[in-house]
Amino acid sequence: MLSKQQLTFLRSLQQKKFRQMYGKFLVEGDKLVNELLSSTFKVDAIYSVQGWKSVNDAIKAEHHIITEAELQKVSTHDTPNKVIAVAEMPLLEYNNEALKAGLYIVLDKLQDPGNAGAIIRIADWFGVSTVFLADGSVDVYNPKVVNSAKGSLFRVQCHYVDLKQLFEANKHLSVYGTFMDGENIYRTALDKDGFIIIGNEGNGIGPETEPFVTKKIAIPAWGKAESLNAAVATGIVVSEFRRISLQ
Amino acid sequence: MLSKQQLTFLRSLQQKKFRQMYGKFLVEGDKLVNELLSSTFKVDAIYSVQGWKSVNDAIKAEHHIITEAELQKVSTHDTPNKVIAVAEMPLLEYNNEALKAGLYIVLDKLQDPGNAGAIIRIADWFGVSTVFLADGSVDVYNPKVVNSAKGSLFRVQCHYVDLKQLFEANKHLSVYGTFMDGENIYRTALDKDGFIIIGNEGNGIGPETEPFVTKKIAIPAWGKAESLNAAVATGIVVSEFRRISLQ
Repeated sequence: MLSKQQLTFLRSLQQKKFRQMYGKFLVEGDKLVNELLSSTFKVDAIYSVQGWKSVNDAIKAEHHIITEAELQKVSTHDTPNKVIAVAEMPLLEYNNEALKAGLYIVLDKLQDPGNAGAIIRIADWFGVSTVFLADGSVDVYNPKVVNSAKGSLFRVQCHYVDLKQLFEANKHLSVYGTFMDGENIYRTALDKDGFIIIGNEGNGIGPETEPFVTKKIAIPAWGKAESLNAAVATGIVVSEFRRISLQ
Repeated sequence: MLSKQQLTFLRSLQQKKFRQMYGKFLVEGDKLVNELLSSTFKVDAIYSVQGWKSVNDAIKAEHHIITEAELQKVSTHDTPNKVIAVAEMPLLEYNNEALKAGLYIVLDKLQDPGNAGAIIRIADWFGVSTVFLADGSVDVYNPKVVNSAKGSLFRVQCHYVDLKQLFEANKHLSVYGTFMDGENIYRTALDKDGFIIIGNEGNGIGPETEPFVTKKIAIPAWGKAESLNAAVATGIVVSEFRRISLQ
């Protein structure tokens, strides 16, 4: 049974301002909630239909049994899948400390939730520990990002940062950005470490970010497309950095 | 002014069965309609708000002026952008003829429209002339595919085929498929030509398709993600084939 107050609260978490006010976000569906429960994230409450079983027997969160109709009311999916959970956003701050050597992804005002989720999966796949997001980028706790990131959101650290401060505190790391007139990534020398900046879907890397780029790179084109999808371009670039690190 | 008949017709094209019945599909927005008008596709009708200008002065299609409110009624977008066009599906058939040497993408029951659009952009970017789709794959004339493919749908040939017939008619070409236990794509020998099969988002390459695969490949993982987004994986694999073709 879902109280009116619970209904209002769960629905409010579909909006960024309430997620930020409460520091909480929604995770939906059997598989993803089970990944959440196996992660280090703190889980506040679980709302499931009768019969849903967690893989984790010792759930510490409140567990409310609700009906399919109630689940439909709070779900962000067309076809809700048994369960929705309220998780706490991790308190991750970047305090302008120098980062250790490694590969990092930086999203410069990326907007599309599906792209952000796919990029968090790319980071997880290729062992990139952290995705930095410029203020003005999509909220990674948006239900569409949570969904498209699969469980990777629970393993990859996501930090909202001032990019100027990030790059100034880390002058020991190269800063790569993709540009139409960049150097062919297959042919140019790449460090195995550094920042890879991915720009906004329509506008690319912003003029306030471009001065920090130490090397402009490009994925060479064989055909006539104006651009690649932002997540696809990220995958190709990160793959290339990992490939050369094996050599 | 939009007649009731026009309204019904335009809305019907949001559904696959009517697109197939009429052999027509919708193209929306200023940029995309202009790309359509610059393409080889036949355009039947354009419905635009007053003041919309085509880059192509000599439009042969009917051109109807409609109001913003009327456009909203027929649009598939949250914020319609000036114009919607009705285009004819090209009559592309694959007659089981042997293909010439080249790289081809094959979608084995891929379902997500955003992924299909992103993959058609990948084909266009990397100069892959043709995307073959197994029956049961997403309809590439779905408005969401049209939108996410950008103008690439007008340049890349998309054929729905029986995969068995395709592979049996083209035994001169290697057939690559991504599998968890495939060979590391960075390390294994790849032809520069062949078919690259991309499987369904949840189930991968189907059991009826797998026997045609002549080489199983894999993108090596550094982290813990179970998988990559299907379009991202396509981009990485196609990029790797193009990279080695330069060597």
